[in-house]
Amino acid sequence: MVKVENTKNIAMSDCIVNLDHGDPTAYEEYWRKMGDRCTVTIRGCDLMSYFSDVNNLCWFLEPELAEAIKELHGAVGNAATEDRYIVVGTGSTQLCQAAVHALSLLAGGIEPVSVVAAAPYYSTYVEETTYVRSGMYKWEGDAWGFDKKGPFIELVTSPNNPDGTIRETVVNRPNDDEAKVIHDFAYYWPHYTPITRCQDHDIMLFTFSKITGHAGSRIGWALVKDKEVAKKMVEYIVVNSIGVSKESQVRTAKILKVLKETCQSETENFFEYGREMMKNRWERLREVVKESDFTLPKYPEGYCNFFGKTLESYPAFAWLGTKEETDLVNDLRRQKVMSRAGERCGSDKKHVRVSMLSREDVFNVFLERLANMKLIKSIDL
Amino acid sequence: MVKVENTKNIAMSDCIVNLDHGDPTAYEEYWRKMGDRCTVTIRGCDLMSYFSDVNNLCWFLEPELAEAIKELHGAVGNAATEDRYIVVGTGSTQLCQAAVHALSLLAGGIEPVSVVAAAPYYSTYVEETTYVRSGMYKWEGDAWGFDKKGPFIELVTSPNNPDGTIRETVVNRPNDDEAKVIHDFAYYWPHYTPITRCQDHDIMLFTFSKITGHAGSRIGWALVKDKEVAKKMVEYIVVNSIGVSKESQVRTAKILKVLKETCQSETENFFEYGREMMKNRWERLREVVKESDFTLPKYPEGYCNFFGKTLESYPAFAWLGTKEETDLVNDLRRQKVMSRAGERCGSDKKHVRVSMLSREDVFNVFLERLANMKLIKSIDL
Repeated sequence: MVKVENTKNIAMSDCIVNLDHGDPTAYEEYWRKMGDRCTVTIRGCDLMSYFSDVNNLCWFLEPELAEAIKELHGAVGNAATEDRYIVVGTGSTQLCQAAVHALSLLAGGIEPVSVVAAAPYYSTYVEETTYVRSGMYKWEGDAWGFDKKGPFIELVTSPNNPDGTIRETVVNRPNDDEAKVIHDFAYYWPHYTPITRCQDHDIMLFTFSKITGHAGSRIGWALVKDKEVAKKMVEYIVVNSIGVSKESQVRTAKILKVLKETCQSETENFFEYGREMMKNRWERLREVVKESDFTLPKYPEGYCNFFGKTLESYPAFAWLGTKEETDLVNDLRRQKVMSRAGERCGSDKKHVRVSMLSREDVFNVFLERLANMKLIKSIDL
Repeated sequence: MVKVENTKNIAMSDCIVNLDHGDPTAYEEYWRKMGDRCTVTIRGCDLMSYFSDVNNLCWFLEPELAEAIKELHGAVGNAATEDRYIVVGTGSTQLCQAAVHALSLLAGGIEPVSVVAAAPYYSTYVEETTYVRSGMYKWEGDAWGFDKKGPFIELVTSPNNPDGTIRETVVNRPNDDEAKVIHDFAYYWPHYTPITRCQDHDIMLFTFSKITGHAGSRIGWALVKDKEVAKKMVEYIVVNSIGVSKESQVRTAKILKVLKETCQSETENFFEYGREMMKNRWERLREVVKESDFTLPKYPEGYCNFFGKTLESYPAFAWLGTKEETDLVNDLRRQKVMSRAGERCGSDKKHVRVSMLSREDVFNVFLERLANMKLIKSIDL
């Protein structure tokens, strides 16, 4: 391996660039520019009770958050909220577990319910469904080729984490009462992908983190058709954490409201801002990857009902591959770039997941190091 | 049963008084009087990252909250914070589960670890340790008489929920590496009980809810001696909810700071305020119960290091009993008073747990109805 002299890289040689997790700090600048528009003020005597609305099935859901969620989905057109229960969670992480718990409980069998997702899948699903060693459900891995009898839950993430593809169920058991699906729509927002239809599934998960970048708030919500499922999800969250932070809920409500109000604006549209940023990053990444041994997925264009035009996809993660027989996560680690190993996502050593949502300076260092790896390889040859 | 005419009760006859849960709304008035002293203002661009402090083992803990926790314990003298890891949780509910998870994992066996608590115990422990049907641990009920071999965890709540007694471990296995203890000190604060010593145990749980009444914030913390235990607790919380609301953390930090600053004040001391309120409620309750078939525990006085004098205990729950052979929870329900059944706490039908932390008007209605029941019974005889 030839050592490549590059003063800029040497200056940054101590800095580890962590793109393993999807910390969405990329959007901070937008919210800074919004100044006081989204500022919340909470007095010492506010929000003290466990209860937000005793008449709501989800009694710990702040009514203003419920309202803001419905209005935003209405304005964006990405999901139906009519005749559905909204369940708020400490991130969609807690909600995914609540949904798996609820569906398993309602399956009512003695044997654990199988949980599957088509590879490559969100690696955290594995941890979420295994860490408590529950007797109610069992992670069965890749949904492609899954043919076990009995009740099962398929986790469908669309656009998919890690590879950004548009997904539908892959286990083919139509009209089967034992087949349940949880749709994770964390990234089904117009800065990442064309909004081609208003989603209308039984259980749909959303997270505040990936829409606006407010990961620290730990707010997610589920849109749930069936009352019993919603009820069991609420029960799970009650035992798990007796509800969800009210401070985060009122702040989320405020920010979602501003998001909705500005989403048709020519100058302040967050989705426009986000899309432009993602487009710019993806174009620069593709430029580096071009004529190298690295690979990236290609995405079809689609007509976006929100923007009213045909658009490309700019996923929140890059599913970076290599044509060489190598362990890509280690190759990147040697360049002090942390990424998520493809193997953890049910894929192979030749793929990694890289966050596209870091701060700009971090993303720039990543691109430089990737370019440097390409250079090393070409000299190597 | 003689119908007792009582216009005031008839006027309130439609109102159900829910004292089953421990919603601590009693303190709202104090915080209202504090005006802007505890107000927090959060801008749209604040607190966006998952990370609070990448150099801390508990990387999602806001440094200002860690500081406020240490300072408050220092000022009150109820628990040692030196040489300990602070783990923040979505209420102490999440932390209790994190601790049970961590200890079970580190026990390393194939058989589930037994979890016990001396009756009467906090009924939620049963749900927390059974709802996911974990293969790692198993609720074994009452710690009195527990003699199963192998690793076990004893949950010690002191002052105890539901009965307000001061507790120590009851399973007698000294110097046994397989014996682990989680101390739940939710109520070990000077408005409820004399602070007789600075607690110094391996795992100590605290919750914001029961100190100041901010239940809606869902903030708890654990003080943990052992690094591996703290690490596993953090890992649990990461998979369970990827950390804890930052908004709640910064607000808790602010309020705990004011609590500490004013805790020696003659006019603004929250603990003094809380103690006076609890004393007043307990005296009125004991007055109603006096010369009736109802019973209440008696508590020994103790020298409180915080207040510098000998004081009584005024627990957050009343452990109400009856000398009659009756189902007390149903008797109360007929009077539209909801309480928690003694049986759920590992006790009997003749006992219930009643929250002492409701709003004043609700507490007054409860006292009236209890007096009314006494009256009905005396007429009955």
